[in-house]
Amino acid sequence: MTAPAGTALIRDDLLERDRSDPLAPFRDRFRLPEGVIYLDGNSLGPPSMNIGTRIGALLADEWGSDLVASWNRHGWFRLPERVGTRLAPLLGAGGDEVIATDSVSVNLFKLLAALLRRPGPGRVVLAEDTNFPTDLYMAEGLVSLLRESGARLRLVPPADFEGALGPDVSVATLTQVDFRTGRKHDLRRLTALAREAGIPIVWDLSHSAGAFPLRLNDDRVEFAVGCGYKYLNGGPGAPGFLYVAREFQQSLDTPLSGWMGHRAPFDFETRYRPAAGMRRFLTGTPGILSMVALEEGLRTFDGVDMEALRAKSEELGNVFLRLADERLTGFGVEAVSPRGARERGSQVSLRHPDAYPVMQALIARGVVGDFREPDLLRFGFAPLYVRYADVWDAVETLRDVLACEEHRAPRFQHRDAVT
Amino acid sequence: MTAPAGTALIRDDLLERDRSDPLAPFRDRFRLPEGVIYLDGNSLGPPSMNIGTRIGALLADEWGSDLVASWNRHGWFRLPERVGTRLAPLLGAGGDEVIATDSVSVNLFKLLAALLRRPGPGRVVLAEDTNFPTDLYMAEGLVSLLRESGARLRLVPPADFEGALGPDVSVATLTQVDFRTGRKHDLRRLTALAREAGIPIVWDLSHSAGAFPLRLNDDRVEFAVGCGYKYLNGGPGAPGFLYVAREFQQSLDTPLSGWMGHRAPFDFETRYRPAAGMRRFLTGTPGILSMVALEEGLRTFDGVDMEALRAKSEELGNVFLRLADERLTGFGVEAVSPRGARERGSQVSLRHPDAYPVMQALIARGVVGDFREPDLLRFGFAPLYVRYADVWDAVETLRDVLACEEHRAPRFQHRDAVT
Repeated sequence: MTAPAGTALIRDDLLERDRSDPLAPFRDRFRLPEGVIYLDGNSLGPPSMNIGTRIGALLADEWGSDLVASWNRHGWFRLPERVGTRLAPLLGAGGDEVIATDSVSVNLFKLLAALLRRPGPGRVVLAEDTNFPTDLYMAEGLVSLLRESGARLRLVPPADFEGALGPDVSVATLTQVDFRTGRKHDLRRLTALAREAGIPIVWDLSHSAGAFPLRLNDDRVEFAVGCGYKYLNGGPGAPGFLYVAREFQQSLDTPLSGWMGHRAPFDFETRYRPAAGMRRFLTGTPGILSMVALEEGLRTFDGVDMEALRAKSEELGNVFLRLADERLTGFGVEAVSPRGARERGSQVSLRHPDAYPVMQALIARGVVGDFREPDLLRFGFAPLYVRYADVWDAVETLRDVLACEEHRAPRFQHRDAVT
Repeated sequence: MTAPAGTALIRDDLLERDRSDPLAPFRDRFRLPEGVIYLDGNSLGPPSMNIGTRIGALLADEWGSDLVASWNRHGWFRLPERVGTRLAPLLGAGGDEVIATDSVSVNLFKLLAALLRRPGPGRVVLAEDTNFPTDLYMAEGLVSLLRESGARLRLVPPADFEGALGPDVSVATLTQVDFRTGRKHDLRRLTALAREAGIPIVWDLSHSAGAFPLRLNDDRVEFAVGCGYKYLNGGPGAPGFLYVAREFQQSLDTPLSGWMGHRAPFDFETRYRPAAGMRRFLTGTPGILSMVALEEGLRTFDGVDMEALRAKSEELGNVFLRLADERLTGFGVEAVSPRGARERGSQVSLRHPDAYPVMQALIARGVVGDFREPDLLRFGFAPLYVRYADVWDAVETLRDVLACEEHRAPRFQHRDAVT
């Protein structure tokens, strides 16, 4: 029984949507604890059902049996490319344009440094002041290292970004989906705008990859980095990834030129010669446990129709916003994410003056989102395992918490180091 | 029945040594395949017996049950320090002077960059041209990034290193144990010599940590990095570590200033403020699977008398060299490692013109060492699991291979990407 348009939603409407959801079966691929509605896959995706078996085999049948020979015998040496090739279709990229390695932070440094050092008039790295801070910190570290040669970082409010694409800018960086608001940039339009100004953009796709389909090739995106542990379900601290469009790969030189990026690492030459293709963006020896876990996380996308994923992501957010309007009136809650689904990533944030204790109370009730300074309740909707009914139940739980002022209990006031 | 001095050793002598070896029981801590004599722990240490259980618990009871809350609940956030504190006693360092993160390559870049950027007349990074290449490549990448400000890399043969500690040198880097020959530097003497010249040395302890006891504090070592996957048994591509003597921690600023090194990462400030202490050397989110595996690897050292470890390491090498003398005469084998045990790490290398196929034939017989360009057979002696009788059996197998010219078989000529 679906409510007619204009009528308030009821839970049965959402159960009905779950029944007709083509992605519903994929939920079985995940190990999710009983009694938890997990709306924080935008911070850390859950493990796949198969993760224990796969990692167990890595430990026993690869490392434990073949020891160092596993580098060849079990393809460890090629894992960064293998994982990149598996990830590429989710990004709309060629299999030879993506590689998994290091962290988002380190990968961003590589690309910003490689681009900033190219000859040209610009010495400025441009970024939005609302960007996820690690991107800003890495850019700050880079320009401070290159201060003597005039490098500097310019941070502007998002509204001023386009106007700041001037001749003194050498390289810009943007995160596609804002970690606080979920606001989504138009990759294609901004990349084209910057290209006209002769400025490369390094996109951070941490909140994009796996949340909705990307078309990096079609959108003529040149450079990107991203995160493996959010929507890609790669495990805590999973390796990050880099994307470099084919035409730029051979002309870019990262200063983080470790031996795994060498053309012939086992020749042990004294001088660095970068590998052809994406391997030149590797540095040290990759962490194989984390790399295999990321590969396993990516398998949760096998056979997924990415357009269906995007449609569900948009609908989950739409339903959440609609229910917030219909059922949270008078509780001091305000939606801060865009109303238009095309302008959002796969998360919705609400503002509330007591956001921290409210989120603690929600978590205690089994609805796991997260808090972001200073007053945001953040909810991520990973379409592979979040159900429409979960959205209903999450909003109802939030309503209960606020109605009963549960969040005023002293036990919800203490702040952990990480939330 | 131990042979009297001057008499050739026999296998029974070595069985006797195993019976009286105080470290013999520790072998049971490792999962080692049947029929293999593993002399490549200097490349990749074996897994501990407990690794499957520990990682299984991480996947099921931490990530799989508590999801993102594990960052606090299971101490993931503090793992880099926790692992560092566990490692510190093996280094002779304070628990607050060591942290595990990133790779050796990336960590070396952090320290070299932080030291090179300090005010002073020197703009040169000094290194031995025989150093492990990734260290040279990272230094090359750093100085090429800073070329405009006069930075450059000077590579000298080991014999010229001390003489090259001149006023134009800003920072030097040395690997304590040479990866080819096993030759060991005197940390204390060289650190003091460089200090008199006003030059900090960043030591690479990749072939030292876990191979023999270190006394970084007593030896007044200021800066070091090292590897988790060799003698520390941390698993393939385990995180590396950094050591910075307490007095220098607050004055060093790495340009790889990621959010995990921020004083308050979850305040999401726009500007970077480094954390107090070693956390400032963190960059992105640490790979928790690899970090927990390293912690488990370090547990194999629980209760180990490091002086007994050093004594056994020296004796294993001595026995190997003596047996090579006594039993490999006439086969074209030449020892390239120092004869004096105090001048060696825990490995011995032999030169042979057919080193590559000889090592392949040895591996086919279950004696696993490795080959290093152009003509080296490399054997590592990890005292926690290598037995004296293993040394005998390895030399006998090598003798058999050479006597039968087994290595001339076509199947041993093909070179893998990694060996």
